[in-house]
Amino acid sequence: MRRKGLASMAVQTVASTPSSDPAARTGTVDLGPAAALSCRECGERTPLGPVFACEACFGPLEVAYDLPGGSEAAEALRKRIEAGPNNIWRYAPLLPVPADVAEKPNVNPGFTKLVKADRLAAELGVTGGLHVKDDSGNPTHSFKDRVVAIAVEAARAFGFTTLSCSSTGNLAGAVGAAAARAGLRSCVFIPHDLEAGKVVMAAVYGGDLVGIEGTYDDVNRFCSELIGDPIGEGWGFVNVNLRPYYAEGSKTLAYEICEQLGWRLPDNLVVPIASGSQLTKIDKGLRELISLGLVEDKPYKIFGAQAEGCSPVSKAFKDGHDVVRPVKPDTIAKSLAIGNPADGPYVLDIARRTGGAVEDVTDEQVVDAIKLLARTEGIFAETAGGVTVGVLRKLIESGRLDPAGETVVLNTGDGLKTLDAVAPTTGPSATIRPTLESFREAGLA
Amino acid sequence: MRRKGLASMAVQTVASTPSSDPAARTGTVDLGPAAALSCRECGERTPLGPVFACEACFGPLEVAYDLPGGSEAAEALRKRIEAGPNNIWRYAPLLPVPADVAEKPNVNPGFTKLVKADRLAAELGVTGGLHVKDDSGNPTHSFKDRVVAIAVEAARAFGFTTLSCSSTGNLAGAVGAAAARAGLRSCVFIPHDLEAGKVVMAAVYGGDLVGIEGTYDDVNRFCSELIGDPIGEGWGFVNVNLRPYYAEGSKTLAYEICEQLGWRLPDNLVVPIASGSQLTKIDKGLRELISLGLVEDKPYKIFGAQAEGCSPVSKAFKDGHDVVRPVKPDTIAKSLAIGNPADGPYVLDIARRTGGAVEDVTDEQVVDAIKLLARTEGIFAETAGGVTVGVLRKLIESGRLDPAGETVVLNTGDGLKTLDAVAPTTGPSATIRPTLESFREAGLA
Ligand SMILES: [Zn+2]
Ligand SMILES: [Zn+2]
Repeated sequence: MRRKGLASMAVQTVASTPSSDPAARTGTVDLGPAAALSCRECGERTPLGPVFACEACFGPLEVAYDLPGGSEAAEALRKRIEAGPNNIWRYAPLLPVPADVAEKPNVNPGFTKLVKADRLAAELGVTGGLHVKDDSGNPTHSFKDRVVAIAVEAARAFGFTTLSCSSTGNLAGAVGAAAARAGLRSCVFIPHDLEAGKVVMAAVYGGDLVGIEGTYDDVNRFCSELIGDPIGEGWGFVNVNLRPYYAEGSKTLAYEICEQLGWRLPDNLVVPIASGSQLTKIDKGLRELISLGLVEDKPYKIFGAQAEGCSPVSKAFKDGHDVVRPVKPDTIAKSLAIGNPADGPYVLDIARRTGGAVEDVTDEQVVDAIKLLARTEGIFAETAGGVTVGVLRKLIESGRLDPAGETVVLNTGDGLKTLDAVAPTTGPSATIRPTLESFREAGLA
Repeated sequence: MRRKGLASMAVQTVASTPSSDPAARTGTVDLGPAAALSCRECGERTPLGPVFACEACFGPLEVAYDLPGGSEAAEALRKRIEAGPNNIWRYAPLLPVPADVAEKPNVNPGFTKLVKADRLAAELGVTGGLHVKDDSGNPTHSFKDRVVAIAVEAARAFGFTTLSCSSTGNLAGAVGAAAARAGLRSCVFIPHDLEAGKVVMAAVYGGDLVGIEGTYDDVNRFCSELIGDPIGEGWGFVNVNLRPYYAEGSKTLAYEICEQLGWRLPDNLVVPIASGSQLTKIDKGLRELISLGLVEDKPYKIFGAQAEGCSPVSKAFKDGHDVVRPVKPDTIAKSLAIGNPADGPYVLDIARRTGGAVEDVTDEQVVDAIKLLARTEGIFAETAGGVTVGVLRKLIESGRLDPAGETVVLNTGDGLKTLDAVAPTTGPSATIRPTLESFREAGLA
C-alpha cells in the first residue's frame, strides 16, 4: 500500500501540479531518446518524471525510447558510437540522457576492460573463448558508477539539488563521488554500525552521511518516509524515485561487451543477481542491439549467479517456481545480499527463455574463485566477482554451460572493497631472515 | 662498490657469456625502437640487457631509441597512436617493447582519465584550466602498473621467468597482478611487519610473497645479494636489473597528458617526487614529443611535490644546492617516502631549467588536499595525490605558479590504499533514529 501511495503522489507532482520549476514539472525534460516511462506489467505509459511505479497497476516503470531503425540508421549509429568518448556516453543515443551529456561534469564511468582470460579459460576448460568484463575499473571501482551517472542526469533534468540513497557499501561511494563532481549536494543514509572502512569511503567526498540507528530495512523505511515528506522536496533518491533512469545504466554493460567483441553477441553471459535489475537490463540492452541491427541476431544464454547464503532466485529456478520466496541473507557477498529481489521473477523468465540457468555457490567457493581469478588473470575481484566466477566453474563442471561457446563473466567490483573475504586465507608464503641461507631454507628459490 | 660489482656482472652476463638462452644473451632482443642503453652521466652506450649501471662510470643507464623524425613521420605517428588501443600500448612506437606488445597478455594499464577540474580550479583560483591526471584508474589503482607493464615485456625479452621486487605497498600488488596475467612466476619481498591489508593486496595474486625480518633497507640489501647469487638467475627485479625499462613507463604519463589536451603541452605540471624517476621521465617524454613534432615547442614548467616529512629534494631546491642530502622519512605519504632519492639531482635540474620549483606540504595539508579533491571532483586520491594537490595550492598562494596557465596535477594512486590517512577525520555528519523528527533535529534537512 505504501508503494501505491508513493507512486500516486509522485505522478501527481509531475503531471498536474503547477510549479516554480518548469523543467521538473511540465514534461518538457530533455532526456534524449527517452520518450516516456512504461509499465513492465501492463504497458501503461506515463510522462517522464521522478516516478517509479505504474499508476494503473503499481508495476515497476521503465524507460521507453524512440530509437532509430533500419540498416542505414544502424551503420550511422555504429559510427557515431565508435567516435564517442571512452565511457558510457558513447551510448548516449540509447540512454535517457541529453545529447550533450558528455560536456557536463560527471564521473564518466564505463568502457571498462573486457579482458580475454585465456589462463582462466584453460583452468576451467572453456574452449570457445572466455572474457571477464571487469567493472572494477570504474571511478569508484564498482558498476554502481554506471547507474548513478544516469541518475545524476535525471536529477539535473528534474531540477533536484540533493542526490541521495540508502546503502551498505558500493552505492554510497558512487553517489558521494558523482554528486561531488556534478556539484550537487549529497545526503546518504547508512546503518550506524557499518564497518569503519566503508564509512570513510562514503564520507570522504564531503557530502552528508547519516548513520541510522537500526537495520538496513529501517534505513530504507526511513528513506521512503522522507520521499513522501516536504523535507524530501528536491531530493533525488537514485534507486527510488530515480530508479527507472538509474536502472538503465546497466544496459551499458551489454553494449560494451558486444562492441568490445566486435559488435557480436556472446553465447553465454554469467551475471550476478542482487535485486536482479542488472541482469534484466543486460538482457534489455542485448535485445535493443539486435532490434537496432547493431549485432546479428542469434541465440544467447544468460546465467544468473547468487551466493548460497542469499539464493532465493536460484532456489526458485531449481524448484521450477515463478515466484521468489524472500530469505534472510547470510553471506560474505554483501553487495548481492538482497533477500527479496524485486526483479527476481524477471530474472527467472530470462534465464528460462534464453536457455540459461540460475546457480549459487558457497562462501568458500566464492573465496576460491576470487583467488583463481587473481592468480590466472591478475584481476582482484570483490566477492560478487567470486560469485560469478564460482558459478561459471560450477555450471561448466555440471555440463549446463557449453564450454565451446564464447563466454563473458562479469566482475562488478574491486577486491580492495572486500579485503576481509580473503584476508584470513591470504598471506606470505614464508617469513625469513634477510640472508640467502634463510631464503634457501624456505624452499622458494 | 656493490653497485660497481653488480653492474659489471650484469654486463658480462649479457655481452660475453655463451648461454642456453639466446634471446637473453646475444643482444638480438626485440624491444621495438629501443636501440641500446646509454649512460645518463657519460653517454657511454651498452647493448640492451638486464643492466642498470654504466660500466665506465657507474652512472644510471637509460633506454636510447631510434625514433622517426620529420613532419611527415609525425603525422603518420600521430594517426597510428590515435588508432591504437586505449592503454599505454598505443605509444608502443616510443617505448622499449616489441611492436606486437598489445597481443600479449599484460594488464594493459594507462590511458587513464584526464579530468577537467573546474570546481577544484575555482577553489584554488586557477583560471587557465586545471586538469587532474588520475592514475587511480589503472588496473591495481596506481601508476606503478605503467612501469611494471614495461618491465614485464623486458623480462620476457631477456628470458626471465620470475618477476620480483622489494616493496612496502603499491609496487607489490602491481608486480603480483602483472606476473599473474603474463603467466610469469612472481616472488615479492616485503618487511615482515607490513600492515595486514597491504599484505593481502600483495599476496592475493598467488605469487610468492616473502616477509623479511628487518627494515625496508634490509629487504633491499637482501634483494641486491639475491641478484648477484646463482639463485637469482632468471629473476627480473623490476626496479633493479630491469630498472632502465621499468622507468620508461612513466613517459606514458607525458604522452597521455599531451594527447588528451589535443596534442598540446600544458603550461604547468605538478608531479610527486619519490625517487624522482617519474618526474624526470615525464620531462623526457615531453621533450620527445617536441622533437618528434607531435606537439608544438613552447615553454612548460615542472613542479615537484614532496611531503614535509620526506622533503630532501625540496630542501635542496630551496637552499640552492645541486646535491640532495638524505633524510629519514616520517610522513603519511608512504608511497613517496624515499629518503635518498636516486634521481634527486636530475629533478633539481629540471625544476630549475623549466622555471618550476620543488615544494613540500605537511601531513595535515596532505589530508586537507585529499578531502578538497574528493569534495570538488569526486576523486579519492591516495596520500601522494594529497601531496601534489596540496603543493599546487601552496604554489598558487605564494605566487610561484601562474594560475592563468594551463595546469595538470598528478594523482598517482587510489585513496582506498591509504584509508588510514583520512579515517581519523572522516565520518558521518550525524547519527539519528530512523524518524523524520530525529532527522530534522540533526539540522541536515
Ligand atoms: Zn501497470
Ligand atoms: Zn657512464
